Amino acid sequence: MSEYIEHNEDGVSVGLVEKKFFTFAEPPNEMLLENGDKLGPVTIAYETCGKLNADKSNVIFVLHALSGDSHVAGYYQGDDPKPGWWDIMVGPGKGIDTDKYFVICSNILGGCMGSTGPSSINPKTDKPYGLDFPFVTIGDMVQAQKKLIDHLGITKILSLIGGSIGGMQVLEWCAKYPEMALSAIPLATTARHSALAIAFNEVARQAIMADPHWIGGNYYAGEKPDLGLAVARMIGHITYLSDESMRLKFGRRLQEKKDFSFNFDADFQVESYLRYQGTKFVERFDANSFLYITKASDYFALDDQHGSGSLVEAFSKAGGKFLVVSFTSDWLYPTYQSKALVQAMKKNGLDVSFCEIEAEWGHDAFLLPNERLAAMVKGFLDRVYNETRY
Amino acid sequence: MSEYIEHNEDGVSVGLVEKKFFTFAEPPNEMLLENGDKLGPVTIAYETCGKLNADKSNVIFVLHALSGDSHVAGYYQGDDPKPGWWDIMVGPGKGIDTDKYFVICSNILGGCMGSTGPSSINPKTDKPYGLDFPFVTIGDMVQAQKKLIDHLGITKILSLIGGSIGGMQVLEWCAKYPEMALSAIPLATTARHSALAIAFNEVARQAIMADPHWIGGNYYAGEKPDLGLAVARMIGHITYLSDESMRLKFGRRLQEKKDFSFNFDADFQVESYLRYQGTKFVERFDANSFLYITKASDYFALDDQHGSGSLVEAFSKAGGKFLVVSFTSDWLYPTYQSKALVQAMKKNGLDVSFCEIEAEWGHDAFLLPNERLAAMVKGFLDRVYNETRY
Repeated sequence: MSEYIEHNEDGVSVGLVEKKFFTFAEPPNEMLLENGDKLGPVTIAYETCGKLNADKSNVIFVLHALSGDSHVAGYYQGDDPKPGWWDIMVGPGKGIDTDKYFVICSNILGGCMGSTGPSSINPKTDKPYGLDFPFVTIGDMVQAQKKLIDHLGITKILSLIGGSIGGMQVLEWCAKYPEMALSAIPLATTARHSALAIAFNEVARQAIMADPHWIGGNYYAGEKPDLGLAVARMIGHITYLSDESMRLKFGRRLQEKKDFSFNFDADFQVESYLRYQGTKFVERFDANSFLYITKASDYFALDDQHGSGSLVEAFSKAGGKFLVVSFTSDWLYPTYQSKALVQAMKKNGLDVSFCEIEAEWGHDAFLLPNERLAAMVKGFLDRVYNETRY
Repeated sequence: MSEYIEHNEDGVSVGLVEKKFFTFAEPPNEMLLENGDKLGPVTIAYETCGKLNADKSNVIFVLHALSGDSHVAGYYQGDDPKPGWWDIMVGPGKGIDTDKYFVICSNILGGCMGSTGPSSINPKTDKPYGLDFPFVTIGDMVQAQKKLIDHLGITKILSLIGGSIGGMQVLEWCAKYPEMALSAIPLATTARHSALAIAFNEVARQAIMADPHWIGGNYYAGEKPDLGLAVARMIGHITYLSDESMRLKFGRRLQEKKDFSFNFDADFQVESYLRYQGTKFVERFDANSFLYITKASDYFALDDQHGSGSLVEAFSKAGGKFLVVSFTSDWLYPTYQSKALVQAMKKNGLDVSFCEIEAEWGHDAFLLPNERLAAMVKGFLDRVYNETRY
């Protein structure tokens, strides 16, 4: 997700939140991954906002995208300068109303924000895993989330919501644990990662792996592959925006100076913006996590993995209600990909609403303040809550 | 341009061509560049096909894109495995009919295919220029081309044609030397490099400059920044294609093996295609030339540089005929940018034809076999030839 999001400053917030950790270690201490590898023990970092009601029927599970984390809304105690990444959507009276719903968000397996990932310590070597970390899929991420939900004593999730790679997790949940997902809101996502999306991810990975500090993923004791990761992030950033949003936001405007530098400095604002985003990202994100998570998204094809090649078949067990949302200027996961989802759901007779929101901000639109999106999510959740009390 | 072009194999060719060199060295041996720097002596590599007629009224000047060269059509004597980069368009009976026209193509200033560029020897140091090479603009490239045309004793050019950065040169010619340009065919190009296009170029440059072998551009005595240049090329390649073309060409098809590797090998065909393109490119292209040429294209804004901010004004001296062509799936230089050109030309009362060609192959479409494009170019050239004999 873009760092360029203007965070909510309206003062309405869930207030203080706390990062918690859940560690599971089944005998023999391990989680069985889709590729057959075993991993364990596994820790999942998560946060909650709002109150779980008595019959546990008000659970909203938020699934984050590539660079997100469990800190979805509110502030940490102490010196937390900005609220969680989706504070504009999650809070009292907001699209996901924390006065009414109990919101859970966890860092994905393979990530680097508290959940077990390639930068975690491998208990067998007492050193960070690096590339010894096993390959994890979107399905594995969801399997780990399921263990967290079980641990919290929750048996039904009122709604799963997420955009981009978060949306893939939403879809995976509906195919893998259909009995638990009463409804789902996949935003700006796809059932099947396209060649274009794979191509961008692959170039970003190549940029990381070309950095001599990457040294096969074993960089934790020394310098990190910051330059490579910064380039990877810059590539990602372009795909989150759009021709129109870049024209509106930057155009050909120059930095403070009025003339061209006639060298390879950043002349244009768009150049320095990208450089800044790259530099800032490496301070908080692990390059190996970037590799693992992007590759997991590339592997994602709900039709192949849950429907023997048929998307209709992949939704055959799902029984919940759906709100599918795409954005006009999103060229990473264009509307036709959301429409394919809707079509497959409808062929299964599912209760599905679809909206393509007119937005100029590209893929990032799902993270930006958008009254229409917030109202739609709110309305959908209210309906689902009223219709599916159990 | 893409290397993935299927080259013409129909046997119709201009036959053998020869790379020639023109070196100019005005007193005091130098060319005055737009940024005020001086450069010299300057060599321009060029090739010609067809025959110059007696009154020199059949000259077509082809301007190449980022990674092109003077070898536009035909074969070199000896072991030349494939024809020039636009052999499908330039040859006997083709869109640019060498039975009728005299075709010139030269390598751009700043390039690395025979013309003076950053990999050339700096006469002051007897070493390659590296970043001591002065900054060259699209205007400087065109100024050097003009000296070549003068040297060949040509005073009028029947038509200038080129796509992408070649198209920028076409437009620059029309604004800078309007009296010489009887007609022009800018293809898949823009009058003003957009923020999106600048962003992609900047990330590509960052990938090169992040390579430790780049060492500030002074890599000619040692290892080259091949990994960085390969990533830069991969980024470029994605922008030359389109969502649709990648879906058609690659989809989610895997390499020979049938299953995922569950590691960071190339699983998908699109990944290995990109890796291959990156690796192949570094064998023939200079990383510093990539930096200089992309930055020159980023600086290009015909309205600012020739019209005090007005594109209409920029064409006020032009008097020729125009054929402007865009392609539906080109998202690097989308059709609205060609339409802006057409509008500005029309406001000057110029004779302009415009066509948006339905094509799924993205920006690369201008280089691919396209009967409609070939027929349109042929028809336009014939008309211009008949109407502007002088």
